[in-house]
Amino acid sequence: MAQYRDAEALHIGTELLTLRTNTHTTTLAQKLLPLGLRLRRAVLLADRLRDIVDALKESLRNSHLVIMTGGLGPTFDDISREAASAATGRRLKEEPRLMHRIKAKFRLAKLAMPAINRRQALVLKGAHVLTNKAGTAPGQFLDLGDRALLLLPGPPRELESVWKSAWPYLTKKFGLKSQILKSFQIAGLPESHVEEMASRLLATMPKNKIESTILASSYVIDLIFRIMNKPPQPTINRIRGELKNIFEHHFLGEDGSTLERELGLLLSDAAETVAVAESCTGGQIADRLTNEPGSSKYFFEGFVSYSNESKINRLGVASELVERHGAVSQEVAQAMAQRAKDQSGADWAISVTGICGPSGGSAQKPVGLSWFGLARPNGTAAVQEKTFTGDRKLLKEKMSSFALDWLRRELLKKKFK
Amino acid sequence: MAQYRDAEALHIGTELLTLRTNTHTTTLAQKLLPLGLRLRRAVLLADRLRDIVDALKESLRNSHLVIMTGGLGPTFDDISREAASAATGRRLKEEPRLMHRIKAKFRLAKLAMPAINRRQALVLKGAHVLTNKAGTAPGQFLDLGDRALLLLPGPPRELESVWKSAWPYLTKKFGLKSQILKSFQIAGLPESHVEEMASRLLATMPKNKIESTILASSYVIDLIFRIMNKPPQPTINRIRGELKNIFEHHFLGEDGSTLERELGLLLSDAAETVAVAESCTGGQIADRLTNEPGSSKYFFEGFVSYSNESKINRLGVASELVERHGAVSQEVAQAMAQRAKDQSGADWAISVTGICGPSGGSAQKPVGLSWFGLARPNGTAAVQEKTFTGDRKLLKEKMSSFALDWLRRELLKKKFK
Repeated sequence: MAQYRDAEALHIGTELLTLRTNTHTTTLAQKLLPLGLRLRRAVLLADRLRDIVDALKESLRNSHLVIMTGGLGPTFDDISREAASAATGRRLKEEPRLMHRIKAKFRLAKLAMPAINRRQALVLKGAHVLTNKAGTAPGQFLDLGDRALLLLPGPPRELESVWKSAWPYLTKKFGLKSQILKSFQIAGLPESHVEEMASRLLATMPKNKIESTILASSYVIDLIFRIMNKPPQPTINRIRGELKNIFEHHFLGEDGSTLERELGLLLSDAAETVAVAESCTGGQIADRLTNEPGSSKYFFEGFVSYSNESKINRLGVASELVERHGAVSQEVAQAMAQRAKDQSGADWAISVTGICGPSGGSAQKPVGLSWFGLARPNGTAAVQEKTFTGDRKLLKEKMSSFALDWLRRELLKKKFK
Repeated sequence: MAQYRDAEALHIGTELLTLRTNTHTTTLAQKLLPLGLRLRRAVLLADRLRDIVDALKESLRNSHLVIMTGGLGPTFDDISREAASAATGRRLKEEPRLMHRIKAKFRLAKLAMPAINRRQALVLKGAHVLTNKAGTAPGQFLDLGDRALLLLPGPPRELESVWKSAWPYLTKKFGLKSQILKSFQIAGLPESHVEEMASRLLATMPKNKIESTILASSYVIDLIFRIMNKPPQPTINRIRGELKNIFEHHFLGEDGSTLERELGLLLSDAAETVAVAESCTGGQIADRLTNEPGSSKYFFEGFVSYSNESKINRLGVASELVERHGAVSQEVAQAMAQRAKDQSGADWAISVTGICGPSGGSAQKPVGLSWFGLARPNGTAAVQEKTFTGDRKLLKEKMSSFALDWLRRELLKKKFK
């Protein structure tokens, strides 16, 4: 028996082939996993009936479940219903209950219903109507015996709502499997190092029970495991334990964790607070810290000191330090952190000063150079120098990541000392 | 004669069907436009040879140009070369010049070359090798008479480099057309309003010469025109003029412009500076301002005053105001802006205080409520109340957008007074 049955996705919308990035594929891939369905391919198609019908026929030949996203609106270029009808040979019928609901909506808004809106009440013969709580386009689920067809609306919030309505039909058709997709995050190491360090662990895993993938972004690396062992929990626990041993303080967390989330948890646990003093990152460290709900418990204030004057007048860095060593220097980074801590009364402070370019670099201080400062609860301070590569936006991201990560590692050290 | 010839994209990589969002489709769609090629469909495929060969054969039947991305690395799951060979019937040959380059690279790094790396020197018989300045995987261009096949590496920077190497072959094969994709940005209006306001202009456009699309994001709406008139410039000028008339100060800019870019240009033009005082946006306004190269000319400092104490002690908001009206109030917003302006000496200051949730809302002050303050060079101040919807991250984004947009409109008003 194959571990998986196949699913395919057809994403309908001319905009997906011009300017809008499609995010439905990965969303669906993860939703399909507990059904024991693997996404075999995804096809992006413009709003052209013949192309959609051809692709849909082919997908229905190849796979057990075909999901179409988009093309369920009321306008004339919304043709997923017609394409599904042509590909399956099922007639479209106006569903009175749906028609009633649409009319009621217009009555409530005291508007005349345009004739074109009747189209949203058209349902494939034999299909189940799937409620959409986030919009007007209902979904449809059509059982075709050894296959099934699912029509979902394109806007992400509507897709989520209709997916929920489809869930009972999907589990009835495909059953629920205990396959699990589990991700662990590693921070502050290049992808090739992570791969090398994890290779011995990955080699010991039975390929038919556990599959692994590595995904890199600017600072955090995802190790993703598709686990088919039943029950999966002992396997997950073993992998987590081994990864923690291998990566030590570079082990960040699991299930898509972020630096700001882990740092927030550590600060909350310790009942400590942090202040930030940012130059080159321009407020991004504070912005990321405050993305976490409840961050007001451990973050009270940040200084965005972009100019020398602000470093001197607002933070209180001694002007001699700036003059003698320059704004991007060990001395200024350390003073920024210490002054931010003193002024705010926070337990910790982190600072960064650097050069994000594209101009402003020199042979001695190139674009990408950055100094980080850290002031600790016990009054000691530390600095680190780092040189990153990338364009302006990427540099800001890497520098803010490093600052958050440094504090996270300090808190970890303290916790386990 | 058709306006376009067709192209198709095959994106290879199991990760695209699990967790990684594919961004190549829209990148390629725009690159293909000046060649008079329209992306007809895009297919995301896992690293399975048979599926790739089948899809490639079908695409070569349907379209004039087929582009494969990914699968050109050295490891065993990089099978785009083999799939292309199987689908076209062209043998793979080891190219001595490539082999030489790969060996030299390993010699330079003082490493033994693993045998597996030979695979990156395999070239389809008759294909042109395309230099990759950003990595080790070269691209390939294969002319098949009335069709062509282009192999590109998956990492975006490498794709860009190889695309440049492919350009001479592509223009020789397909010619250069004067078709242009032109985008204009509208700020601060809902998508449906933008659609309605633009509908009369859009209706006057000859469908076979100008196509239009509307794309909405959290605050800025894109109006995109595919222009086939030759020369296109008079048409672009006419559209720009009409859009400016229709949308007035909501007209933001063109070619993917952003609030922070347009605001930066206006501040630079006026040789004026801005300071920010942020509570609920947590530094995001400053972060976005400093995404622009050269922003240090007009942005000197920002206050991230997340707590009441910071608003009082750092900014100098009167504590009675906070006590009497609450931190999220007209009075505190106005005082934050005025104090930020006074302390920084900037010409302008903007402030925001609000509730981003998920908790902290009440019946009187719900999640999404925000007060904005603006302090002007002439000493006057203004406040605005706004209630936005969305989750925490979306609220921060909408609030920071509104703050940037308000200042932009003020600067525009002043400029054209």
